[in-house]
Amino acid sequence: MALVIVSRVHPSSDVWAPEMRRLMPEIDIRYWPEIGNPAEVDAVLMWQAPEGLFERLPDLKAIFATGAGVDAIMGDERVPKHLPLCRLVDPSMTSEMSEYVVLQVLRFHRQEPTYAAQQRDRVWQVHSQPHPHQRRIGMMGLGELGQDALRMLKPFGFQLRGWSRTPKTLDGIETFSGAEGFGDFLASTDILVNLLPLTGETEGIIDATLLARLPQGAFVVNCARGRHVVDADLLAALDSGHLAGAALDVFHQEPLAADHRYWSHPKVILTPHAAALTNPLTATPQIVDNLRRVRDGRPLVNLVDRGRGY
Amino acid sequence: MALVIVSRVHPSSDVWAPEMRRLMPEIDIRYWPEIGNPAEVDAVLMWQAPEGLFERLPDLKAIFATGAGVDAIMGDERVPKHLPLCRLVDPSMTSEMSEYVVLQVLRFHRQEPTYAAQQRDRVWQVHSQPHPHQRRIGMMGLGELGQDALRMLKPFGFQLRGWSRTPKTLDGIETFSGAEGFGDFLASTDILVNLLPLTGETEGIIDATLLARLPQGAFVVNCARGRHVVDADLLAALDSGHLAGAALDVFHQEPLAADHRYWSHPKVILTPHAAALTNPLTATPQIVDNLRRVRDGRPLVNLVDRGRGY
Repeated sequence: MALVIVSRVHPSSDVWAPEMRRLMPEIDIRYWPEIGNPAEVDAVLMWQAPEGLFERLPDLKAIFATGAGVDAIMGDERVPKHLPLCRLVDPSMTSEMSEYVVLQVLRFHRQEPTYAAQQRDRVWQVHSQPHPHQRRIGMMGLGELGQDALRMLKPFGFQLRGWSRTPKTLDGIETFSGAEGFGDFLASTDILVNLLPLTGETEGIIDATLLARLPQGAFVVNCARGRHVVDADLLAALDSGHLAGAALDVFHQEPLAADHRYWSHPKVILTPHAAALTNPLTATPQIVDNLRRVRDGRPLVNLVDRGRGY
Repeated sequence: MALVIVSRVHPSSDVWAPEMRRLMPEIDIRYWPEIGNPAEVDAVLMWQAPEGLFERLPDLKAIFATGAGVDAIMGDERVPKHLPLCRLVDPSMTSEMSEYVVLQVLRFHRQEPTYAAQQRDRVWQVHSQPHPHQRRIGMMGLGELGQDALRMLKPFGFQLRGWSRTPKTLDGIETFSGAEGFGDFLASTDILVNLLPLTGETEGIIDATLLARLPQGAFVVNCARGRHVVDADLLAALDSGHLAGAALDVFHQEPLAADHRYWSHPKVILTPHAAALTNPLTATPQIVDNLRRVRDGRPLVNLVDRGRGY
């Protein structure tokens, strides 16, 4: 019963192992590539698979991802399709993501980019702002993260709506689904937040067509994956004035290239994939639980559905 | 039964009267200085008293302020002390203020000034942040505004504490009061929010002594009155690095002088007294209600206690 941890961090500064050992003293932790006897290894904890991992671990029973998004693993041809893959649903990461969403929504709602520009130019001018019930926030993706962010936005009195692949019913939120609901959802969204999983269907979803369906002056918040966005289309919509601003935490290439236009675009608020960090302290119980489930042959939690891709 | 409105806005674009007439069709509205027969005037709606107001309106029965803070009226020697003075407790203004507070607290909690500087310098670097339950938010002032802001901060899981002149008990919030509780309150506050009324006791309260009692790296949010702050002391604490940042919405002189250091200080987030705007639509019912109470001789609501000053 051993777990292999794949990390770019040196084992001496690994943040996972101490908490795992506290919760499961009998755990046998090994660091890639020092895997010991492969026959004893049941599971691997990783973000991306290193070269040779699956050849050297033929008896692996499960893969545990260190994040909520598993696109890097799902998109990797070398990962055996029969292996159960579990993503992390970390309550601390979820609440950090909701903090990020509320922060960006409030910034745009309160015309913060305008006030920041005024501060630079020493301009004293008050702008009226719509009442929250006149401000329509549209969430793309109604999984754990999307639902929690909506829950945190609710007390502010915004008009909340959500869109997902399959129909969902959420208390106090107008929901739309599938291709047939997408147009109506976008046309009635002032601040669009993306928390979709990255799959073949959702890659490049934030493109010129989507952006054109948003009302003039809308805002976009992307804290899911960079590949959800067609960068040239987003930049064009910001430049034309159709979009009033974008808050971006994720990018096609990370770190973002130093010469990328996003860095200096006056309408872009940029963070370095920092919206929600995995917290080993709060995430570990779930991994330990799944490891015990592997050992006992019980069903795993937060298992990825390989058909839908998340 | 007439109400005199004192406004710098031309009567033709007055935003109060239409809603007042809708709620109280019999209302007789007059615009200063065209007051008609003074004997018919029962109340005045104003922010500051113009010259000659009280001489010309000897039969006035009440003053209605157009804001929550009445320091401009309380500090005016010309205002007759016997006249009941009502401040505005506008639910819309309250929720706007709470939006502002949550926005600024989240910005500081999430190290937004650091990320903004990194964006300017094209630096890609993630910073870990404390869990909200390790972040202590201290509210000075536990009136309508302070309590509502705390209520809106609660779902984020912050450690909330409050300080007020007289002892108050609030669910889930550690409270301190008076001079004897002030030191402990400040020593355990990472993000200090000021929503105190401006009185003789609270003027200049945010001075070198107060700031020195905050932990190293603390943040200050002032959305009450500029005169709560000793500007030179706040700037010194920012410059020395003792304070990590300040969000300021109010100033001694408004508009803020174009050469004031606040405009360009890298640690200051500045807005032009825009945290919470009085919304005539939501504030009017309260004024109409008080006008009816004046007419019927019933007790007024949101009456200012002239002894304590708010």
